[in-house]
Amino acid sequence: MPDPTSLQLAEALQAHSPTLPGGEPALSAALVQLTGQTGKLLRARLTLSTARSFGWEESAAVNLAVAVEYFHVASLALDDLPCMDDALERRGQPCVHRQHGEATAILAALALINRAYFLVNTTFAAQPLSLRQAAAACVDRCLGSVGLVGGQARDLAFASSARSAREIGRIALAKSGALFGLAVMLPALAADPLPQESRQLRALCLYWGLSFQLVDDLRDVLSNSAVEGKTTGRDRVLGRPNLVLALGVAAARARLARLDGLAHRTMARLTPTGEGRWGCLASFQGEALAALSANLARTAA
Amino acid sequence: MPDPTSLQLAEALQAHSPTLPGGEPALSAALVQLTGQTGKLLRARLTLSTARSFGWEESAAVNLAVAVEYFHVASLALDDLPCMDDALERRGQPCVHRQHGEATAILAALALINRAYFLVNTTFAAQPLSLRQAAAACVDRCLGSVGLVGGQARDLAFASSARSAREIGRIALAKSGALFGLAVMLPALAADPLPQESRQLRALCLYWGLSFQLVDDLRDVLSNSAVEGKTTGRDRVLGRPNLVLALGVAAARARLARLDGLAHRTMARLTPTGEGRWGCLASFQGEALAALSANLARTAA
Repeated sequence: MPDPTSLQLAEALQAHSPTLPGGEPALSAALVQLTGQTGKLLRARLTLSTARSFGWEESAAVNLAVAVEYFHVASLALDDLPCMDDALERRGQPCVHRQHGEATAILAALALINRAYFLVNTTFAAQPLSLRQAAAACVDRCLGSVGLVGGQARDLAFASSARSAREIGRIALAKSGALFGLAVMLPALAADPLPQESRQLRALCLYWGLSFQLVDDLRDVLSNSAVEGKTTGRDRVLGRPNLVLALGVAAARARLARLDGLAHRTMARLTPTGEGRWGCLASFQGEALAALSANLARTAA
Repeated sequence: MPDPTSLQLAEALQAHSPTLPGGEPALSAALVQLTGQTGKLLRARLTLSTARSFGWEESAAVNLAVAVEYFHVASLALDDLPCMDDALERRGQPCVHRQHGEATAILAALALINRAYFLVNTTFAAQPLSLRQAAAACVDRCLGSVGLVGGQARDLAFASSARSAREIGRIALAKSGALFGLAVMLPALAADPLPQESRQLRALCLYWGLSFQLVDDLRDVLSNSAVEGKTTGRDRVLGRPNLVLALGVAAARARLARLDGLAHRTMARLTPTGEGRWGCLASFQGEALAALSANLARTAA
């Protein structure tokens, strides 16, 4: 039984979808699949709880959460394409390009990205100038050549690189860290964080991004497609960056434990009492990372 | 010898490019190709002259022109992909995906789209709330499911439709009209057009979009790839919408003449003396459409 927040987000993801009455049927079907087949909604939930705790109105908080999720879902649909990871399944179903064709998958991703920008822009529209400029710069940094797009490019070029653990970390940071960064920093801009807090927030998103990527790497190596609901074992086949393949399972697990320690120490500095204005992030870390570890324990069992 | 405006725009297109020192080499090379290999810069020039005549500062006018051109160039790179039009050449060179791979072409297009939004947002940042909201809605409409993305989806689905001339017009409107609409309406928002003027502006962009698409259709059928610098004859092979294939050359030419008349009559209502605040559009129409006709006359000769 999904919790109320998941239901609320699932409804909002469909309500804001750029589907049209009388729109081209394949495009509409692809958008229905992408906006209806929700995963754990981690990034959307993180955005929502951060936005709520910084005084955004409920509808604005939901808009930002939907925007971040649209950016995420669009990046997954593009990553799955034959020219990228050539995946067969995502969230337990055939990938969008396998159901509706590659061109439609690309167009649906573009429609979601376009709508996500619209949501961010209209949500920030009534905010002061400095905040709007900071938001535009934040999205540009998280999604562009230094963020998601740059990370994906390095990911694809990894097979012909020196394949170092350092390069793997750099890619994980750009790919996975970027969307956590957007989920936290975009709503948190309204809290006008101190420079020291901004540094700690960025560090947290970095540790989370690296942890999530590492768990993904472990599952790609240790699990199978039926359990995961998406195609596994692709990293070895495609020569993609995977720390487990580079360092071995034991070293990867040790690194995951180290990241967990770093995240908790950073959180302790940000919220010395476990509460205060960044308390929502402590809750997210507690729940999401615990769920991640439990999930991984089952996978590896 | 390029004119000063072309040189200025060419320089700005490179200056704002989301290339990075130390960025992934294939992505950087693709961005250099896309931002360096400028075509006629029609949409950028139209944006620039509209913005200038409505009192935008020069740097803001250039930013908007670069943003519209980035959206346009990204759409061309995606349209050329094997899963879309499977083109071989663009602007006299092998397409980006043929030089740098499909994945890199997609990522470069995303990086340009991301940067284009950043430019629009920062340029509008200091404008009043109503104007910023109108700008966000304008971009969403021109590029999303009702605009460029929807038009491209209909374009791809055309082969299995009833292939009516009406559907061809609808597609041309969404695909080609959308970027002219963005080029004119985005900077013109600052002029606070009257409702009647807005209608006439939209009609103008519609006639221009349909005319340009019709010329494209004629060239695809009548010309060859060496003359055009891009792959021709694709519409018949791929079953894409092409009014010349649907109606024949003579009827297509008659329709082009009719569109020319409609555009001139609309312009006459907008600028009764040929000058006034919309005079910049009259100049664009005079120059660009005359060049188009001359070009077409050579093609067909």
